[in-house]
Amino acid sequence: MTLKRVLTAAVLIPAVVAMVWWAHTSVVTVASTMVALLALLEFFAIGEHAGLRGYRVWTGFCAIAIFFMQWLTSVEQSQALARGFFGVRSPEAFAASSIELILLVFVIGATGIVLFGRQHVEEALGGLSVSSGALIFLVLPLSTVVRLHGVGIIGRKLLLFTLVLVWAGDTAAYFVGRAVGRYRMAPKLSPKKTWEGAAANLIGSIIVALVAQRWITEVPLEHLIGMAALANIAGQAGDLLESAYKRSANMKDSGTLLPGHGGMLDRIDALVLAAPVVWYYFIWLTDRTH
Amino acid sequence: MTLKRVLTAAVLIPAVVAMVWWAHTSVVTVASTMVALLALLEFFAIGEHAGLRGYRVWTGFCAIAIFFMQWLTSVEQSQALARGFFGVRSPEAFAASSIELILLVFVIGATGIVLFGRQHVEEALGGLSVSSGALIFLVLPLSTVVRLHGVGIIGRKLLLFTLVLVWAGDTAAYFVGRAVGRYRMAPKLSPKKTWEGAAANLIGSIIVALVAQRWITEVPLEHLIGMAALANIAGQAGDLLESAYKRSANMKDSGTLLPGHGGMLDRIDALVLAAPVVWYYFIWLTDRTH
Repeated sequence: MTLKRVLTAAVLIPAVVAMVWWAHTSVVTVASTMVALLALLEFFAIGEHAGLRGYRVWTGFCAIAIFFMQWLTSVEQSQALARGFFGVRSPEAFAASSIELILLVFVIGATGIVLFGRQHVEEALGGLSVSSGALIFLVLPLSTVVRLHGVGIIGRKLLLFTLVLVWAGDTAAYFVGRAVGRYRMAPKLSPKKTWEGAAANLIGSIIVALVAQRWITEVPLEHLIGMAALANIAGQAGDLLESAYKRSANMKDSGTLLPGHGGMLDRIDALVLAAPVVWYYFIWLTDRTH
Repeated sequence: MTLKRVLTAAVLIPAVVAMVWWAHTSVVTVASTMVALLALLEFFAIGEHAGLRGYRVWTGFCAIAIFFMQWLTSVEQSQALARGFFGVRSPEAFAASSIELILLVFVIGATGIVLFGRQHVEEALGGLSVSSGALIFLVLPLSTVVRLHGVGIIGRKLLLFTLVLVWAGDTAAYFVGRAVGRYRMAPKLSPKKTWEGAAANLIGSIIVALVAQRWITEVPLEHLIGMAALANIAGQAGDLLESAYKRSANMKDSGTLLPGHGGMLDRIDALVLAAPVVWYYFIWLTDRTH
């Protein structure tokens, strides 16, 4: 943890926290879309190193559409809840198939690129596969950030909670791992990670849940702890998964965008899997208690 | 068009037509899921030839979940329409995120395979990419067949319409292409296809629309023609796309399942893109006229 890294974090963390708490969901949508696009470019750079040439522009365009649709859905959802019922021609019925519709448009467009583009046809299968992978493994999970932010105060609280539990867990893992870490967790993927660090990561996130319980009063403590634990495990898995991407391409960092932090993808790899876990846990909890 | 091919068609076509027309949507769901799984295996075999080793079992499991969810959604949709309104805790709200939820579960499971499976970690990016490609380019589009069948008589009519316009177009393309075909359309992908054949394919499908108008009275003629034309073009693109998969792996047929017809994927490649076009055209038409 170099000075550079600490300084970058000291600037970025307050900015992100302030935005999540005060900014309108439309602003968060634009910001998270830009983060997703940067991460997407890095994902495609990794893919290209591994011999899979994705469709950058078209996939990026569909990524924007997915984030925009998540924002639209969250607006429509809050309006429908405000009205107290959904009409027969409810926007929900539209939203129900909208992400699927974007995926279909993506397929049609990618087919056009394969048939009329200048890429070699021998690269078609790899190209459409890695582009699909980018949408499913990166864009779609990350886009739940928008849905989470869109459900009012509780959503903003839970999004901050997700960010903090990832950050605190990572920091705990770093210090505990360095101090007492002996048993290597995944020597091939990420040689510095130890089981002691992973346990500290999990415990750190549970401590965040314990501290946050006075603030996030809408969620019972046992579920706040459950959320933190599941999101943390998913986040650690996301971190390792990103290492596996890079190992598939013989690379170390996904990019050099943030001083001392590697690339954007390196920064958000845990959030990509933690955010959807918190979102679906929240949906399940809401369905259960209403 | 060998005798084998004609005989296979003579057995299969009446069976498929009878099932679409008379069978319950649950039966169609099971049958189309099995077709999807066979096609999926062939897709993965092609991927493996191209050096991309997909997660067969896990992707197949998620494919079953997607078809099952499409069936559930169609049941819920017809119940909601029957009630005349959706409740606040409508099943629609659940369905809205259900395919996305399956995709997330797919991501989590695939991450588990990468981290704990026996595959080489260097193959991770290719493996999860081709598995994602299989879901987005094959399973998801084909699963709209279930939604189409689930909306009552009109859905069954439109599904039969889709099948017949693909079959009739293919047959017209074959005979016209052989008789007068001169200008090659995609010499690299599919050397026997000509522009004359492609035009005959399109015209054949429009003739199907003209003939079907007396039977599918629910859809105005101009939209029936529009549906046939768009579905036919999408179907021809799907056919070429499948050739591109095989070219990526230096293969000729996707399999040898059906005598004289190559593999299952060869048989359904046009339907995979034609069915979702008809489905979303129908949704758009319904939204517009209600």
